[in-house]
Amino acid sequence: MAEPMAETELLQRLTEAGASLESGQLDDLLRGVAATPVADVPADWAALLGLTALPDGLADALLRRLHAVAGDGGISLGRAASAERLSALRAELARRGLAGFVVPRADAHQGEAVPPHAQRLSWLAGFTGSAGVAVVLREAAAIFVDGRYTLQVESEVDTGLFEPRHLTEAPPDAWIAERLGAGALGYDPWLHTPDGLAKLQRAAERAGGRLQPVEGNPIDAVWSDRPAEPLSPAVPHPLDYAGVPAAEKRAQVAETLASGGANAAVLTLPDSICWLLNVRGRDVAHTPLVLSFALAHRDGAVDWFVDPRKLTAQVRDALGNQVKVRPSAELGPALDALAGAGKRLRVDPSSAPAWVGQRIEAAGGTLLAEGDPCQRPKAAKNPTELAGSRSAHLRDGAALVRFLCWLDRQAAPRSRAGEPVTEIEAAAALAAFRRADPLFRDLSFDTISGAGEHGAVVHYRVDEHSNRPLNAGELYLVDSGAQYLDGTTDVTRTLPIGEPTAEMRVRYTLVLKGHLALGMARFPKGTTGSQLDALARRPLWTAGLDYDHGTGHGVGSYLGVHEGPQRISKLPNKTPLEPGMICSNEPGTYKAGHYGIRIETLVAVQESTSDSPDAREMLAFETLTLAPYCRALMDTDLLAPDERAWIDAYHDRVHAALAPLLDPDTAAWLARETAPLG
Amino acid sequence: MAEPMAETELLQRLTEAGASLESGQLDDLLRGVAATPVADVPADWAALLGLTALPDGLADALLRRLHAVAGDGGISLGRAASAERLSALRAELARRGLAGFVVPRADAHQGEAVPPHAQRLSWLAGFTGSAGVAVVLREAAAIFVDGRYTLQVESEVDTGLFEPRHLTEAPPDAWIAERLGAGALGYDPWLHTPDGLAKLQRAAERAGGRLQPVEGNPIDAVWSDRPAEPLSPAVPHPLDYAGVPAAEKRAQVAETLASGGANAAVLTLPDSICWLLNVRGRDVAHTPLVLSFALAHRDGAVDWFVDPRKLTAQVRDALGNQVKVRPSAELGPALDALAGAGKRLRVDPSSAPAWVGQRIEAAGGTLLAEGDPCQRPKAAKNPTELAGSRSAHLRDGAALVRFLCWLDRQAAPRSRAGEPVTEIEAAAALAAFRRADPLFRDLSFDTISGAGEHGAVVHYRVDEHSNRPLNAGELYLVDSGAQYLDGTTDVTRTLPIGEPTAEMRVRYTLVLKGHLALGMARFPKGTTGSQLDALARRPLWTAGLDYDHGTGHGVGSYLGVHEGPQRISKLPNKTPLEPGMICSNEPGTYKAGHYGIRIETLVAVQESTSDSPDAREMLAFETLTLAPYCRALMDTDLLAPDERAWIDAYHDRVHAALAPLLDPDTAAWLARETAPLG
Repeated sequence: MAEPMAETELLQRLTEAGASLESGQLDDLLRGVAATPVADVPADWAALLGLTALPDGLADALLRRLHAVAGDGGISLGRAASAERLSALRAELARRGLAGFVVPRADAHQGEAVPPHAQRLSWLAGFTGSAGVAVVLREAAAIFVDGRYTLQVESEVDTGLFEPRHLTEAPPDAWIAERLGAGALGYDPWLHTPDGLAKLQRAAERAGGRLQPVEGNPIDAVWSDRPAEPLSPAVPHPLDYAGVPAAEKRAQVAETLASGGANAAVLTLPDSICWLLNVRGRDVAHTPLVLSFALAHRDGAVDWFVDPRKLTAQVRDALGNQVKVRPSAELGPALDALAGAGKRLRVDPSSAPAWVGQRIEAAGGTLLAEGDPCQRPKAAKNPTELAGSRSAHLRDGAALVRFLCWLDRQAAPRSRAGEPVTEIEAAAALAAFRRADPLFRDLSFDTISGAGEHGAVVHYRVDEHSNRPLNAGELYLVDSGAQYLDGTTDVTRTLPIGEPTAEMRVRYTLVLKGHLALGMARFPKGTTGSQLDALARRPLWTAGLDYDHGTGHGVGSYLGVHEGPQRISKLPNKTPLEPGMICSNEPGTYKAGHYGIRIETLVAVQESTSDSPDAREMLAFETLTLAPYCRALMDTDLLAPDERAWIDAYHDRVHAALAPLLDPDTAAWLARETAPLG
Repeated sequence: MAEPMAETELLQRLTEAGASLESGQLDDLLRGVAATPVADVPADWAALLGLTALPDGLADALLRRLHAVAGDGGISLGRAASAERLSALRAELARRGLAGFVVPRADAHQGEAVPPHAQRLSWLAGFTGSAGVAVVLREAAAIFVDGRYTLQVESEVDTGLFEPRHLTEAPPDAWIAERLGAGALGYDPWLHTPDGLAKLQRAAERAGGRLQPVEGNPIDAVWSDRPAEPLSPAVPHPLDYAGVPAAEKRAQVAETLASGGANAAVLTLPDSICWLLNVRGRDVAHTPLVLSFALAHRDGAVDWFVDPRKLTAQVRDALGNQVKVRPSAELGPALDALAGAGKRLRVDPSSAPAWVGQRIEAAGGTLLAEGDPCQRPKAAKNPTELAGSRSAHLRDGAALVRFLCWLDRQAAPRSRAGEPVTEIEAAAALAAFRRADPLFRDLSFDTISGAGEHGAVVHYRVDEHSNRPLNAGELYLVDSGAQYLDGTTDVTRTLPIGEPTAEMRVRYTLVLKGHLALGMARFPKGTTGSQLDALARRPLWTAGLDYDHGTGHGVGSYLGVHEGPQRISKLPNKTPLEPGMICSNEPGTYKAGHYGIRIETLVAVQESTSDSPDAREMLAFETLTLAPYCRALMDTDLLAPDERAWIDAYHDRVHAALAPLLDPDTAAWLARETAPLG
């Protein structure tokens, strides 16, 4: 192994290649790179250094230096560390005169993926789940997680330090109201939205205390080896996939602002910004985001507050001169200037950090509390994006069918032979089929590959410890998707390994009936996903069953696999479904300790015209996903004639579309799976 | 005709009977009586005077004096008056330095029935519909009404003074944002809720102006002959009907307050107060309310702010010593005292006047913005109330069946004979059948008796001008209900006069399928009416049809025929359905200019147990209404086997329950109407 190259030599080599850096700058850059999910891509380092390629031999040297200065870029966890960290935090709170502090999982962008430097809840309590919040008081601390994480919290968290509680059944506000007393409960205004604070505020008041924003997160003050913010190169998202030039989008948003009486909107959601500017990045896993903030002005100009190192010359060219790139630290002063000039600023109270509104009001500005103006236009895909999605789904469907055929042939025999396929092997096989596509960029989320009882864990994530064989006589649930340049996919299929039981078939068919009821629905313009949700649940309800997750989420176009503002869910949602919106349709049923069943397809909202003169303007769903339902799990006696006809027509379409992309053997398998139900 | 009796003589006679009044007091009382919907009830006058009965001959004298001092207690309208009133209002606004003023239809109790003294929108603009708002600026004024009232507004309002606009399609906030400019838009904080003000506030800010509460409504300042507040005697609601003693209800509400950290709740909804105190009154039509305010304390005590003249000795005894009767004017000082003592006051931001919160905050109190604590317990009927409702529905069903049989025999032949039944005659006949019941107290709303095209007017109200014959070949829609001491009813049936068309039958059957889908639904605990709404619409949606009203409203127990907090509707509603809640189930379809179809039944939420070990806690509906659906309008080919079975079982139940109450002839008619569909 070669001796690590010294900083001076590295800088010298880089200077020769055209990238001049001060001492320390390279290490800062590498720390940022280490905090991204894909740190080992030399082409990215070159882009961040402003080079087209790295000089010979430098890639290896840079990777070694990266590991030396930042390890893997992640954070160190462990129950043992919690006691020390908690007491350091309490000392810091005491120093600031705070009676307590709220530690949410969210970062300032309220995204699902939280980069390492913002994983404060994990650092403090050791909890790595995707939703949760801790509250630390002088004498007590508690961590609140939902039903998905009640087991995980016991294994990850020192429950002697943090009392584990159910997020909705024994929520933070009740706990705070009982225990806070007259003191000040601190919160970091960067990590909470005004909507999210309302309950905490009431709880503190009920306790006789108050809620108080902090300046500088007290955890950051005691977190010594905190990772850097992630640093990945931004790339233009080509018009061939985006469909609409960024200038046109900026003009459209400007019009929305003008008609709403706003001078500018503060954008804090990275996917809104990426959509608006037609850029993509790799700051976090599975969603091609550039973490950043922006101000969209009513004249169509945009101030983009982003680490300038992320921007290559190519991106700067593409942005044009109406987009001004500014360091992130200038967001506050920019808000002060606008507010001081009497401008009216639109801020989304459900997604923007409370800090934004507080800063604007402190500077005397007027706050217009309205939704992020990019959300609606981003959600309703344009014709290019829809065509891209159809194309992505065609190739994704072929990959999935290759996998399903492979699995159908492998799983039962190998289980009987004592060499079963495992959850990890299955997920890897599926990923390999997808990776073969030239437009593939990433999985759109960690594949849920759940055999038997693991299928009943709604957000199951397989690892070396949990890895389970696909046993004959059990069900296998696979929920997966990919990020292609032309579209994002998300599909779930459930299949039996060998012979299913009658109960499995009845329940699969009830789930299928709900899935079809939603997929076949016709509904008037103005209808929300909340209104449609019960259609998917009704067949299960009849049998006393239900599922504890939403029926459908919005899906981005080479963006978040979960995006708003639409949602098909029990929870009230006021966003009407609009033509072009893409949603998942994924009812399920879960028998804890035994099996899970879920069927998921992506659908696009489209017009549904009628020739009756009385008929209203109606909408319906176009099914994007192309993959057969599982015949072996259907109890066809439970299907109504219109349901059987719909399945046959869909299967016909799946076969016609995919067979030309498949080898003869796989095509023959698909033909059998998609033959009429008869 | 006898000479009217002089005041002195009247007072002398009353003093002899035991009621001593000062000069003027009697006239004040009579003005209040005149403002109630039933002013001519001598027993009520006696009660208000504290007498058990009126001396001989005095009733007539009092009635004449009542007419002399208060006319009919109503308000004078007319397009001609509007110009003068509008300019008087503008002068008053100018005097106060206001750029404009908002005139809603609501009174301080946000109720459906607005008593004459609070009918400011009618007085100013002449508009008498049940929903609307006017905005008056210096140079412009507009009136905003919904789709039900676009024709009515043209006939009632001088549209040269008030520009008519659509309440939701061209709403007040957009109009204000465009026209207000930098001035102050006044509003009466007694007439708006904080939730309702939010949009106006944003609109004023978008215009560059501001929203400003007024002290004293400027309309009242220029309304010279304004009626008095209604004055009717309060009566105890007996335990045989109420089911739970008022002391127990007060203790229950007190517990809710304690667990929510509140010291007291401000109650502004008269139906909450009537429920809590087990009293009823006659201040407005169709709902037995005592208009008043109250403070419910966490020790179970209640301050009732009510005109003391409404309370007989009998009611005062029933209230007990934990309920303190105080004049309405003391509400403000009582809030000041509590706020000043640092108490935390719970106020419902969706129903309480903004004035309440502003007063509390001005006095330094803490406001807890949460729902009215009586709403949930009032909505979930106790076993006595449910038994009462079943009994009321049995008798109401018999009355309705007598009417339906009568109409079935009269309508078509009389139409052909040129002596058709009219809408008014039909409504009167139905009311007469109901009035025969000894527990009948009032209709629960003005009967909607709509023949032919009038059936398509969702809230049609027949009068001498609109009265239409029930013509053969047309449909007749009748939506009606009654207030019985033991329960409130509300039922709609649609029937053909003579032979219906195939289209009528198909559409009736689609409405029926939706009605059955909702009525047959089984759903998990925690489900809201918003989630279920689409079940009732889905069959209509399939045909491109829909309806522009809710599917179901809550119903009180000898209280409002419309009550919250539950609601089955497209609009988001967060209240889960709970056992004991009564709702309507009333989908419909309307072909403008031709006919309307609506089918309405009241249902009560009940537990729906299951023996499957996996099954969740489920709920379902018990049908309370007993009346046949219309066989002649069913296209039975469109009904699924489970739908036909459900109808047959229900019809069996209707026949078994009602036949014993009917004369043999009507019973025979009912037997035919409820025979199995076959």
